[in-house]
Amino acid sequence: MGKKEKIRAFTSIDDFNQFGDQLYLPHLSVDCVIFGFHDNQLKVLLLKWKGGQWCLPGGFIRHEESVDDAAQRILQERTGLTDIYLQQFYVFGNPKREKDKKKSPYWIGKRFISIGYYALVEFSKVEPQPDVFSEACEWFDIDEVPALIYDHHDIMLKALEALRLDLNDHPVGLNLLPKKFTMPELQRLYETILGEAIDRRNFQKYMLSLDILVRLEERKTGGAHKAPYLYQFDKKKYMQALKQGLKLGW
Amino acid sequence: MGKKEKIRAFTSIDDFNQFGDQLYLPHLSVDCVIFGFHDNQLKVLLLKWKGGQWCLPGGFIRHEESVDDAAQRILQERTGLTDIYLQQFYVFGNPKREKDKKKSPYWIGKRFISIGYYALVEFSKVEPQPDVFSEACEWFDIDEVPALIYDHHDIMLKALEALRLDLNDHPVGLNLLPKKFTMPELQRLYETILGEAIDRRNFQKYMLSLDILVRLEERKTGGAHKAPYLYQFDKKKYMQALKQGLKLGW
Repeated sequence: MGKKEKIRAFTSIDDFNQFGDQLYLPHLSVDCVIFGFHDNQLKVLLLKWKGGQWCLPGGFIRHEESVDDAAQRILQERTGLTDIYLQQFYVFGNPKREKDKKKSPYWIGKRFISIGYYALVEFSKVEPQPDVFSEACEWFDIDEVPALIYDHHDIMLKALEALRLDLNDHPVGLNLLPKKFTMPELQRLYETILGEAIDRRNFQKYMLSLDILVRLEERKTGGAHKAPYLYQFDKKKYMQALKQGLKLGW
Repeated sequence: MGKKEKIRAFTSIDDFNQFGDQLYLPHLSVDCVIFGFHDNQLKVLLLKWKGGQWCLPGGFIRHEESVDDAAQRILQERTGLTDIYLQQFYVFGNPKREKDKKKSPYWIGKRFISIGYYALVEFSKVEPQPDVFSEACEWFDIDEVPALIYDHHDIMLKALEALRLDLNDHPVGLNLLPKKFTMPELQRLYETILGEAIDRRNFQKYMLSLDILVRLEERKTGGAHKAPYLYQFDKKKYMQALKQGLKLGW
């Protein structure tokens, strides 16, 4: 951030709706799609405005704030979540995207273009809290999402598409799986995100070809079948692949 | 687009610099990174402002225009290029991104957040023309790009990274290669974009596994070596893969 910003406290929602552009850039918003993974279930985090509809956690960009910083701040202010790695994925710029928006001569009633961010987190590790504008902040199963405001359902679907394509380019699993895990556990993580079954042998071959896994000497015990090998991520190679992208299979 | 917009013609650059926000949204711009491919060379299209620096073709978004429509219009107005499929890839939102920008109390002197689009075209098929603001519109080899204004060099590099990652998810080649082509020709296209050599056998195996190629009965003639097979894209499967994304190798 640049020079210090003069920030006055808004005294009411009306005050914010009229003069919010003293603090925030006009016409621009940020929406966050937070996917949660736990126990082979994919979820999404939603807010409910007081007396209003369900929506994605979102907000605005301060005049001298970077867009990435704004996304982190918005997520923290609205849900209490911190230290979540957010990935920018798309800009929603259709002038008709805010269906049924309340008319107003002030900044808040104008057209907003929204910048979408997504993240994938282990949902049992975070305790979301609604902010003063919201009466609820809850996880929903991805298949049981309620009606959402404006184009927020489309934003969520586009984020899911981005997350799935991102599996082609980047590793996933660190912070989502236990430190030591079996190949079937890793496969179920991918299957949950993709929403489809994967051939077991092809999956194992593919994952090993990425060269980010270390097979341990131990095997998982306690199952009825032959004990499967345990793996862990080679953290250095994993972080490198996260940064540089995975190579194609050649 | 929504209601008809009242558009007045700007009478001069000063007039535009002062009152452009009557027509355009404040604080938002679009920059286009147009990659050209021809004869195993990757190029990028740049403009030179009259008496100024080289830059990416860019512009602004009208008050009632979609961001995608704005990107198409900007590219056409500034370079004469039409019918180019532009892919949105990233938003550049650092408040310090416009280094050495001229101060001005008007809209043009304020902070701009830029939405980046890229495209890959067969460069001999397009004839770029500079607009009234520019003295030149030229293709540059990707390794010989001149100094660019603001963060435009970073925007170009990020677009190149997005293009390369996009090869993991989507097919490439239609409209860039002749209708019938050999596997080595397709491989050289990938190698040119990626900027690195690929193992011949792995490449062929990978490409065939995508199930978007048809091997023809004909072979290419005229070479000194054993005549290689000719291929063409299965256009229906190609378009489907372009839309849905390629599957991972499992």
